[in-house]
Amino acid sequence: MIPLSLDISASSTLQEQIYQQVREAILSGSLRPKTALPSSRELARENKVSRNTVVLAFERLAQEGYLATRSGAGTFVADPLPESCVSSPPRSAAETTAAGKVLPVAPERAAPVHPPVLLRAGTLRMVQYGPTSLQVDFWYGSANARNFPLREWRQLLIENVSRTSANLSGYGPPEGIEELRKAIAKHVSANRAIPTDPDQVVVTAGAQEGLNLVSRLFVQPSVRIAMENPCYLGAALVFRSYGGTLLPMPVDANGLCTDMLADCGATLAYVTPSHQFPTGATMSAARRLDLLNWAERSGAYVIEDDYDSDFRYDGPPVAALAGLNRNTSVIYLGTFSKSIGSGVRTGYLVVPKQLIEPIRQAKSLANYGHPWIEQIVLADFIEQGRFSRHLRRIRKAYAEARHALLESLHEYFGLTKISGAEAGMHIMWTLPDHFPTAQEVANIAAAEGVGLYTLEAAGAYEIGPSCYPRTLVLGYASLTPEAISKGIARVARALGRAGVHAMPRRVSRIARSTQRTTHVASEGTSRLLRSGIVRC
Amino acid sequence: MIPLSLDISASSTLQEQIYQQVREAILSGSLRPKTALPSSRELARENKVSRNTVVLAFERLAQEGYLATRSGAGTFVADPLPESCVSSPPRSAAETTAAGKVLPVAPERAAPVHPPVLLRAGTLRMVQYGPTSLQVDFWYGSANARNFPLREWRQLLIENVSRTSANLSGYGPPEGIEELRKAIAKHVSANRAIPTDPDQVVVTAGAQEGLNLVSRLFVQPSVRIAMENPCYLGAALVFRSYGGTLLPMPVDANGLCTDMLADCGATLAYVTPSHQFPTGATMSAARRLDLLNWAERSGAYVIEDDYDSDFRYDGPPVAALAGLNRNTSVIYLGTFSKSIGSGVRTGYLVVPKQLIEPIRQAKSLANYGHPWIEQIVLADFIEQGRFSRHLRRIRKAYAEARHALLESLHEYFGLTKISGAEAGMHIMWTLPDHFPTAQEVANIAAAEGVGLYTLEAAGAYEIGPSCYPRTLVLGYASLTPEAISKGIARVARALGRAGVHAMPRRVSRIARSTQRTTHVASEGTSRLLRSGIVRC
Repeated sequence: MIPLSLDISASSTLQEQIYQQVREAILSGSLRPKTALPSSRELARENKVSRNTVVLAFERLAQEGYLATRSGAGTFVADPLPESCVSSPPRSAAETTAAGKVLPVAPERAAPVHPPVLLRAGTLRMVQYGPTSLQVDFWYGSANARNFPLREWRQLLIENVSRTSANLSGYGPPEGIEELRKAIAKHVSANRAIPTDPDQVVVTAGAQEGLNLVSRLFVQPSVRIAMENPCYLGAALVFRSYGGTLLPMPVDANGLCTDMLADCGATLAYVTPSHQFPTGATMSAARRLDLLNWAERSGAYVIEDDYDSDFRYDGPPVAALAGLNRNTSVIYLGTFSKSIGSGVRTGYLVVPKQLIEPIRQAKSLANYGHPWIEQIVLADFIEQGRFSRHLRRIRKAYAEARHALLESLHEYFGLTKISGAEAGMHIMWTLPDHFPTAQEVANIAAAEGVGLYTLEAAGAYEIGPSCYPRTLVLGYASLTPEAISKGIARVARALGRAGVHAMPRRVSRIARSTQRTTHVASEGTSRLLRSGIVRC
Repeated sequence: MIPLSLDISASSTLQEQIYQQVREAILSGSLRPKTALPSSRELARENKVSRNTVVLAFERLAQEGYLATRSGAGTFVADPLPESCVSSPPRSAAETTAAGKVLPVAPERAAPVHPPVLLRAGTLRMVQYGPTSLQVDFWYGSANARNFPLREWRQLLIENVSRTSANLSGYGPPEGIEELRKAIAKHVSANRAIPTDPDQVVVTAGAQEGLNLVSRLFVQPSVRIAMENPCYLGAALVFRSYGGTLLPMPVDANGLCTDMLADCGATLAYVTPSHQFPTGATMSAARRLDLLNWAERSGAYVIEDDYDSDFRYDGPPVAALAGLNRNTSVIYLGTFSKSIGSGVRTGYLVVPKQLIEPIRQAKSLANYGHPWIEQIVLADFIEQGRFSRHLRRIRKAYAEARHALLESLHEYFGLTKISGAEAGMHIMWTLPDHFPTAQEVANIAAAEGVGLYTLEAAGAYEIGPSCYPRTLVLGYASLTPEAISKGIARVARALGRAGVHAMPRRVSRIARSTQRTTHVASEGTSRLLRSGIVRC
């Protein structure tokens, strides 16, 4: 007799349950090879199921080699089952199946000793997602959902998905569809001053994938990578995970300090010249040329992560490093996460021509490319001029948010040390010396429902001891000016209650009264910027 | 005087052209530091452009540090430009910019010696995309665009994209959104008999990404991987690219031969038990248990690539290896490329519980996850029962195509040696001994507009010398029964003209006359299958 435990309310069918339980019994050794099974009629009656249910379950078990039928003699547990298997079941203990209780099983055996996991890295959990209890969240990586070009995106989705299903059912080139590579090439040529052939473009699942593809080509345990210090955690973790050694290079108001590059032995440098992450510094022209000269002399490649270059508020856009160099030593990383939305998960690489074939090889091995619908919609969005219009629109919104943040900080905290406000979606704020540490201020703010972030919490990484214990990273792009003012006011009040006084200057009243006058505001902003470059 | 070459018909603005060309001149050294520039008025007159155009271009150059303005004295090339840069321009030669001709440049210098590319692998170019000159293409990886559930997909796209833009503008969990992981867990539990918790699921950009994530955890130069031989090229290349050594294990009609596993020293095994690629063999229950016992004893992990398990025509579905093992030693790779469409680029991993954290870490470093819209649409498609209905629909279509292929081969080539017809989307056909090689037959077919594929051309890989010089891989899922009959007839005629006679048996006439009778047809099919298992 086979002690089946059938449950008509279970989500699996009775036939499935019989199949599962008999199989379990065979695998666990409680039904030995050559054991005769009761007839299907008998089993059906015992368990109050239709005979056909049992017959179909047995047929499947026979098909899979668990049961054998000898005509006239009935059904048996098959004998080709290896003896070793039956005496040492491949599972560890009796467990409850989806279909109900399992049959008695052989005694538990020790879990196998699996090979150790090789990956040498921390988990990248800097990304905030899902609902938060914070009422005003200055996390730098958020975008404002209201700024997403939803109407246009939906229209392009519908247009493209209606056109054909061939692209949804077929493979495309791993490096990205031609329409999108052309659109990106045109965009970076015009906006970032990088003369780009569409063949130099590889569409990626965000900049993070781009870092992996480059690492696959150039990073192994002997490789040294010159890094801005502090830098972006995601880059540091990826390079380390491929065995690379990070060489920290200091960062000042002009970006990466290039004087330590000579003879450092690095074959790669990772930089964020448009808006250093996290300090916000823009790399000066002199430093750019120093860096490129070093790369040319030493044969190194420079990885330019241009993560938020679409947003520059003071002065004209700063051309990309890759354009200065005619892109022979620079690998350019771009993303649409900041400019359109991170849920679209699309970024790109622009590589020097000599790397087109190697990078395509790396991409084809990593995956066969990005989903077609994201690519075609984005290609149309750029090609039809919608992306440029969208950028103009959100630049304005971000500029207003930035203005509100600078003015609020000025109002409540006086002449604070701010850096990185010229561009991007975040600023770095160095707290006055008499303030608690950045972590303590963040804790006080969090208790008031306001999210403030230390460098580490913001996804920045310091190689070696921390030089920024009193520094916060404040993102503003996802917030309205009203929310920003409210949030900073709350923080100021909470700090006041904790006995920390910001000593605001009288001038803040004036700034406040003229908050809507752009001229006065940008005067105030310039003053803040001049006062606020942080050095370490 | 600056020799500008402006082109009003160019795609970039005149201002952009002036900016580019002056910058070029500075970088190339033809405009030395401290050189005085002509006034904007002068330059505007010379070049017949508005003065404002010149002023704006100069302003940008000044902002970026190329030009300096001394009040009363005019505009100069900035001096902080490092001397070294100006004398050794970072680009190699004069080239034509998008905006027109560049200025005269300094003499060409040798290209830098960049570090060698590390990636140890061939390029994965097995994927066929774009238009083909073939009229009937038996490439195994194609799907029929007409089978794509376009109407439903569009409906779900519109519904989801209309609901909210928060998911398009924000980050999601790198391992995949919860809705989709739940839907996949339910699907594999019910359809593949793998008891799966949603936390064990990682959504990937196709199975290829899954192979990379596993490799990141377990493959390095000292690691040996037991491989089916022949095997899937994409897997072989990925493992090798991480430095792994492939141990070839023979494949017969019961799948991977397990007798060579003991003491082989592998810590990973890569198998396709449902439908071995490319031979089409289904791994027997005995072999499955042998394999799992080996893994349990040795501590190895088994990677089960279940690429086309949704399609089984003869008998009930064969449960997955991962389910037999309660998923403690098996890492399961699934894909929607075959069952829905490869343009959706979505696959998944189901990992043992002890690997949930490591695999999430690997995924977060590889990229921050799959685009949201693909994930939510697929989650709804599965959850609403649409996927099951879709599978039933296309299983029927594929079964008809398979039937047409087997009957056509039978009709024109007699009792041919076929394997792998029980399941999947392709068969393997071993040509009679008196035929030319598979490559020659493929060439003859191609000349007739029919695509036939050798193992290598189909993306299969043999570790060591080829055992399959007379074997073709024929995919049928993308073709109609009519196209299949036409294609095989053409190949037979072309071979006949080339003096290769197939010696069809008289029985083929009978089969032909009863082609639409399912019973007779499946009799014929069974006979073909019995005759056709290939061994090497």
